[in-house]
Amino acid sequence: MRTIEVIASPALIPYYDIEGKALVVIDILRATSSMVVGLAHGAKGIIPVETVEECIRYRRMDYLCAAERNGMVVEGFDMGNSPFSYMEERIKGSMIAMTTTNGTLAIRQSAKASALAIGAFLNLDALIQWLVSRTESVILLCSGWKNRVNLEDTLFAGALVNRLSSTHKPDCDAALIAEKLFLDGEHDLKGLVMQSSHAHRFEALGLAQDIAFCLQMNQYALVPVLKEGVLVAG
Amino acid sequence: MRTIEVIASPALIPYYDIEGKALVVIDILRATSSMVVGLAHGAKGIIPVETVEECIRYRRMDYLCAAERNGMVVEGFDMGNSPFSYMEERIKGSMIAMTTTNGTLAIRQSAKASALAIGAFLNLDALIQWLVSRTESVILLCSGWKNRVNLEDTLFAGALVNRLSSTHKPDCDAALIAEKLFLDGEHDLKGLVMQSSHAHRFEALGLAQDIAFCLQMNQYALVPVLKEGVLVAG
Repeated sequence: MRTIEVIASPALIPYYDIEGKALVVIDILRATSSMVVGLAHGAKGIIPVETVEECIRYRRMDYLCAAERNGMVVEGFDMGNSPFSYMEERIKGSMIAMTTTNGTLAIRQSAKASALAIGAFLNLDALIQWLVSRTESVILLCSGWKNRVNLEDTLFAGALVNRLSSTHKPDCDAALIAEKLFLDGEHDLKGLVMQSSHAHRFEALGLAQDIAFCLQMNQYALVPVLKEGVLVAG
Repeated sequence: MRTIEVIASPALIPYYDIEGKALVVIDILRATSSMVVGLAHGAKGIIPVETVEECIRYRRMDYLCAAERNGMVVEGFDMGNSPFSYMEERIKGSMIAMTTTNGTLAIRQSAKASALAIGAFLNLDALIQWLVSRTESVILLCSGWKNRVNLEDTLFAGALVNRLSSTHKPDCDAALIAEKLFLDGEHDLKGLVMQSSHAHRFEALGLAQDIAFCLQMNQYALVPVLKEGVLVAG
């Protein structure tokens, strides 16, 4: 039976063997949710970059440039990390360069995987189908908050562990803990997530509707996958 | 109100502000459980050391020397990490030098705390009283397994978060997740822990009775605290 593991923070990547596995990057609030939205709204591709400076270079090549730090749009950029800005008309046919506090960094650190996909509640079922259809074991990488464990990413990892239980056996304690958290909170995801530190930061920034949007399941039947450094609809 | 945070793995220490806080080191299976047992059975002090080589140096000074790696006693040492070996007659009045896979390393990495105590189910209530009687905020450091998150340490951290909720406010998502895990598993700790990767390793090594022993609550009304590099009964 294939296995499934959960890396609770990017700082723990060195302690897992990623090689040859299908890696799912998770940053529910909001990077990976917005990536799903952008590709569903017709973006041709999204390039995850690490720094704001690197993002600026893409701007000169007619990319839309998205930069978020600490929950806010970086001044002078086209957009930040809100899923609603990835639904606008200009998204259709565009290439997007995107740097965020947690999400893109996690993607860049995970080059050894045999395949890399983007996960969010918004594309949960599509992602499950994609993972079941492949042959590899699975590693779920939670982006967390500045290398700390966070609630919403762990919760989504738990949803995947639970829904993949007939094909993928949990192979680390973080996977067991995440599944229990999901089973506990499944019937009121928003109530649970609103207890988190991240949610409080978001509310203070006026982003409560972003949270509600990102916790909806199965809005898009699409899996962003990394091909030659670019996330495209898989 | 004072705060309480949970560091889910020693690798995440750099992302928390430990300074001025009361730090509790947790390694339920089995280092911190055995430290409680040893001091309760009359050991004068326990010196946590990082390496087997450093441990050997203490041997020449008439210390009992405890070294465990991957769940087993290192050859030629007086004892490893089993709580039962910390109940023997020779423990009374002894000084012990102790190196373990996870526990002692976590202790040595946490020099900035204003106070350092040892936590286990075995001394839960005594530890709670000790933490409530002090003035600082609290950080719980889970030793984990080779820098991965583990079930039993997270579970105990959750017990502390829950039992301290009237005096200490959870200040990170790991604390919320740990508390939910504890509330979920409280009525059958052993059933829950037996699902973990660590427990399976232990069973394979014939250590099932160690697990059952370490999951008993409040067997000893004593808190090991670090004073000038030595753990003594506080």
